Amino acid sequence: MKRDVTMVVLTAGIGKRFAPFRTDKTLFPFLGKKVIDYALPNKLPPEVVRLVLVVSERNLETFEAMHFPVPHTVVVQKEATGMAGALLAAKNELRKKAILVVIGDDVADDRLIDTVLQSVRPDVSGVIVGWKPKQYFPGGYLVFREGRPVGIKEKPGEGKTPSEYVYFGGQYIADADSLIAAIESAPEQVDDRYEHALTALMAKDRFVMVPYEREFVSLKYPWHVLDMTEYLLTHRLVAGRGKRVEIRNNVSIEGPVYLGNNVKIFENTKIVGPVYIGDNTIVGNNNIIRDSIIGENCVTGFNTDITRSYIGDNCWFHSNYVGDSVLEGDVSMGSGSVLANLRLDEGEIHSVVGEQKINTKKTKLGAMIARGVRIGVNASVMPGVKIGANSLIGAGILLDADIPADSFCTGKSTLVVKKNTRAVGTNNRDKYKAKI
Amino acid sequence: MKRDVTMVVLTAGIGKRFAPFRTDKTLFPFLGKKVIDYALPNKLPPEVVRLVLVVSERNLETFEAMHFPVPHTVVVQKEATGMAGALLAAKNELRKKAILVVIGDDVADDRLIDTVLQSVRPDVSGVIVGWKPKQYFPGGYLVFREGRPVGIKEKPGEGKTPSEYVYFGGQYIADADSLIAAIESAPEQVDDRYEHALTALMAKDRFVMVPYEREFVSLKYPWHVLDMTEYLLTHRLVAGRGKRVEIRNNVSIEGPVYLGNNVKIFENTKIVGPVYIGDNTIVGNNNIIRDSIIGENCVTGFNTDITRSYIGDNCWFHSNYVGDSVLEGDVSMGSGSVLANLRLDEGEIHSVVGEQKINTKKTKLGAMIARGVRIGVNASVMPGVKIGANSLIGAGILLDADIPADSFCTGKSTLVVKKNTRAVGTNNRDKYKAKI
Amino acid sequence: MKRDVTMVVLTAGIGKRFAPFRTDKTLFPFLGKKVIDYALPNKLPPEVVRLVLVVSERNLETFEAMHFPVPHTVVVQKEATGMAGALLAAKNELRKKAILVVIGDDVADDRLIDTVLQSVRPDVSGVIVGWKPKQYFPGGYLVFREGRPVGIKEKPGEGKTPSEYVYFGGQYIADADSLIAAIESAPEQVDDRYEHALTALMAKDRFVMVPYEREFVSLKYPWHVLDMTEYLLTHRLVAGRGKRVEIRNNVSIEGPVYLGNNVKIFENTKIVGPVYIGDNTIVGNNNIIRDSIIGENCVTGFNTDITRSYIGDNCWFHSNYVGDSVLEGDVSMGSGSVLANLRLDEGEIHSVVGEQKINTKKTKLGAMIARGVRIGVNASVMPGVKIGANSLIGAGILLDADIPADSFCTGKSTLVVKKNTRAVGTNNRDKYKAKI
Repeated sequence: MKRDVTMVVLTAGIGKRFAPFRTDKTLFPFLGKKVIDYALPNKLPPEVVRLVLVVSERNLETFEAMHFPVPHTVVVQKEATGMAGALLAAKNELRKKAILVVIGDDVADDRLIDTVLQSVRPDVSGVIVGWKPKQYFPGGYLVFREGRPVGIKEKPGEGKTPSEYVYFGGQYIADADSLIAAIESAPEQVDDRYEHALTALMAKDRFVMVPYEREFVSLKYPWHVLDMTEYLLTHRLVAGRGKRVEIRNNVSIEGPVYLGNNVKIFENTKIVGPVYIGDNTIVGNNNIIRDSIIGENCVTGFNTDITRSYIGDNCWFHSNYVGDSVLEGDVSMGSGSVLANLRLDEGEIHSVVGEQKINTKKTKLGAMIARGVRIGVNASVMPGVKIGANSLIGAGILLDADIPADSFCTGKSTLVVKKNTRAVGTNNRDKYKAKI
Repeated sequence: MKRDVTMVVLTAGIGKRFAPFRTDKTLFPFLGKKVIDYALPNKLPPEVVRLVLVVSERNLETFEAMHFPVPHTVVVQKEATGMAGALLAAKNELRKKAILVVIGDDVADDRLIDTVLQSVRPDVSGVIVGWKPKQYFPGGYLVFREGRPVGIKEKPGEGKTPSEYVYFGGQYIADADSLIAAIESAPEQVDDRYEHALTALMAKDRFVMVPYEREFVSLKYPWHVLDMTEYLLTHRLVAGRGKRVEIRNNVSIEGPVYLGNNVKIFENTKIVGPVYIGDNTIVGNNNIIRDSIIGENCVTGFNTDITRSYIGDNCWFHSNYVGDSVLEGDVSMGSGSVLANLRLDEGEIHSVVGEQKINTKKTKLGAMIARGVRIGVNASVMPGVKIGANSLIGAGILLDADIPADSFCTGKSTLVVKKNTRAVGTNNRDKYKAKI
Repeated sequence: MKRDVTMVVLTAGIGKRFAPFRTDKTLFPFLGKKVIDYALPNKLPPEVVRLVLVVSERNLETFEAMHFPVPHTVVVQKEATGMAGALLAAKNELRKKAILVVIGDDVADDRLIDTVLQSVRPDVSGVIVGWKPKQYFPGGYLVFREGRPVGIKEKPGEGKTPSEYVYFGGQYIADADSLIAAIESAPEQVDDRYEHALTALMAKDRFVMVPYEREFVSLKYPWHVLDMTEYLLTHRLVAGRGKRVEIRNNVSIEGPVYLGNNVKIFENTKIVGPVYIGDNTIVGNNNIIRDSIIGENCVTGFNTDITRSYIGDNCWFHSNYVGDSVLEGDVSMGSGSVLANLRLDEGEIHSVVGEQKINTKKTKLGAMIARGVRIGVNASVMPGVKIGANSLIGAGILLDADIPADSFCTGKSTLVVKKNTRAVGTNNRDKYKAKI
């Protein structure tokens, strides 16, 4: 029995923890599309007859202008009140509806939402996805009784998990009004008000769980752009070439690679897929590009190495190493500047978000650089450093701290100029010239 | 009517503003010749029956030893008294002559002097060249009355120019004695004594102007070497190859390129003309060389990028970026040192000459480095910096100031050595080794 | 007449002056073997019927486990008492024997020991090798009387040498007991006790000298690893390829090169022999490797230049210049870090050993780096610097001093972060993009 479903898509998150990036998380571009395009299934299931998009004032215009195969309504969520607040904001649009709640930057297997809807039965009040992480994950673990999910326990701590399954985005709720009522009854000032409400519903109504063991990615912290890059390059990249692509002599291309319109790849460059390169980008000579997304209108210059990185539009390079880094767009790097991606002790890299020092759990992580940044020649940016928008980073410096937006950052350096009293010899040159 | 003309060539300028370079401006080598060879027409016009070279004591010997197709006399100008002083010094050689005054480092279209002489008529007392710059130029603007040039207004300021034409080198004067008399009558202590004299002549005698709309270049400031390089590469380069040129596998050569005798180009190097490379120079492997002049006996080493630059003889490189820079000769750069050529804010680059800060009007300008300089590894030289002869620049420093000759310049740096208490892991190596 | 000879091999030297390296000098690996394998002839002469190895407690186990074509006895020398002490330690094993004394890290022409033994005659009490150095060498010079060597003068000083010949390892002594007695009679507390003893023997018994004019090398100071590398690459390298070697497109290999099993050479890399590359090593793309030994399980990464260097096992590189340097093993270098190998004044490079500043007599000498060191990105290590085991060297620093083992070395640097008030232009990009 097919039942009409309203898909509620939550996109209003302000992304405070996503700094230094200011691009809306759901609108962050990947492979020529936006995150929202991957959060929603490529082809909407036939049950979905309408979309309700809960947006912020920032992204309102963009979402209003978007086209979908079914009618869509845009609702503004004014305050950062989480999923609970988002659903309350959409309350009037959801009366008497069956709904599917989707988070706009949660990306998983394209068939997962289909599977959720196919699990709907007349006696089922809700369907929830249970993800089986490989190791402890700080999320909401499902609690089971007699094989049925009956509640959620937020971040129980390692070794104290009530089950192997973490719930995540993609909940089907047969009666939206009951969910709204449960939210309204839940404690107001808590972060997990939505989970409180779900737990109340699950305790009294029949829910089923759809198990999911594959990866899912979302954009909570800025380094998650790398996870999203890896995920989408692996699962969603369509190799191919646009129009007027120019590939010079002795270019080596391995693995799945997409080259946009007017892309040029110069001599002696090696591209190891999965790699996506946007329209009008020029990859200079003697480069190596691996496992990366490069946006439109970029120029990589001579002798650059871009590895496991996300490069937005309009970035310029020249003899750089960019490893495991995210450049939001419109970033330039001077010759010889390096985004280091490995600590000397090869340990896990931490990053301060707000007041909190977070272990990224990554041993390879470079810099996260917002739009409009310029980096001087021979600068060294340490692993995990974040640079705010429109900041200038002086040449030759060691940048080992996060830099706020609109900064001009240099080092303190003092030149010592003395009279040179040493003769300069060139005796051995011919010997070395003989064997260059 | 052909009239015998004495060409007066002014070469005595001391080039104070041309520092840090000490090479005589008229003798600065380009494309295997000297500036003087481009300032004089390739083939002297038939009217020119004699040359009078006004030289300094520094370049006296060189000019005396030179060969010309017509007899030449060398006159020494002892003091830095400008064009007026130069002509006064040559006074005795010019009596009763028709003369053509040429500045030894003014380079323009090779046919311009011919055109000047072809404009000579029996009723013409002088012929002057009027150059039409594309934007305001701080030179001597011609003043016209009834269509005739009747005077020169020095640096009138933007918006206050009496005409569109700036006068420059290549004046024909039918009666040298009248010019000498006018100079002797002009105020003595002014910079523009010569222009005062010309103005006096033009006010009373009939002058005509030859208009010139193409480029001209001269060597006033050190960065003008780059303009001269661009001009001569564009207009005077003769592509070709000397003897025993060795070009290794997978070298890409585009555009007009001249390679001197015994030049070697190693593997995977790209040369994008116009480029001139002098005898016995070795271009190492994995280089890119663009729009540049490289002198004799240079070694570019591995992985060097030389772009829009002038490199004198005997320079050595190793994995450097040299952009929009001038190296007079005998300069070495350590591995990884960079001559930055773009400000972080991409603004126009200034340079202090004497006491004065000059806007070079260039947004791309690297360093200007005199003979005998050695630069350490990983040093970063900022845009527009000038380094005096025989100076040593320490490794790893940020050089953001001009350095006088014979200096030893280092940075103040302090090492902090502590006991290492961290274990160093190598856990993930195999993973990364699998995908180099 | 063939006489049975016991070869005494001295390997107990503690190598204090060999710091920062801790590998036993006689066990230092070269070209897949150890120094001891080159110090002993490839094929033992038939006269040699037994080996007595004088070892230290450190290398005891290794030597006991070794296999030789004749029986061998291992004797432990407990204290650092030089050659004299070594022979005294082996005293009981040498009674009534004819012996050949060999130093375990002296490497010379493989046929030299054969020549020594072939010079043995019934009336000869000893055979000694006389090496003819090209310039004064601070060793023991032979004193001659009536054409016969009759003594040794230690370090006589330049211009005061009693002959042209320096004695070195490989002495044949017909009666070991007489040598032992002479040692026991020689002054006890002197460095050259052994030479005293030899001189006493030579004064009374008939010795002959075998002249030797070719090179010999030994491992006294850490930079001697470079001399050994050059010597062995020149004289002992056997070019060839192991199993499963993978050579990618556009790799250039010149001169004698050995590539071990599973070696991979990536695109656009140039190898100029003599070069030895051990098993399982990956040479990345766009590299140049010249005149070097690289051990097993190394990864050179992208765009690395290794020239005239010794690289031990398990080293990782990324866009580095490694010139005239020794890396003992398990060393990693961050992108853009450079081991400088030439002083700015191109003078001879000195190194402090113990309390003493030694002139290495080399104008090209990079760093000497012990096992377990990690070097940050864009660090600049000055010529002749030594880094002790397991030390971390911070990114971006100028390292101009020796660093002890187990250190964490950074620079003092201060970031200055101001508000950026400059607009950032990108006006000229299209112009430059047109001609990349």
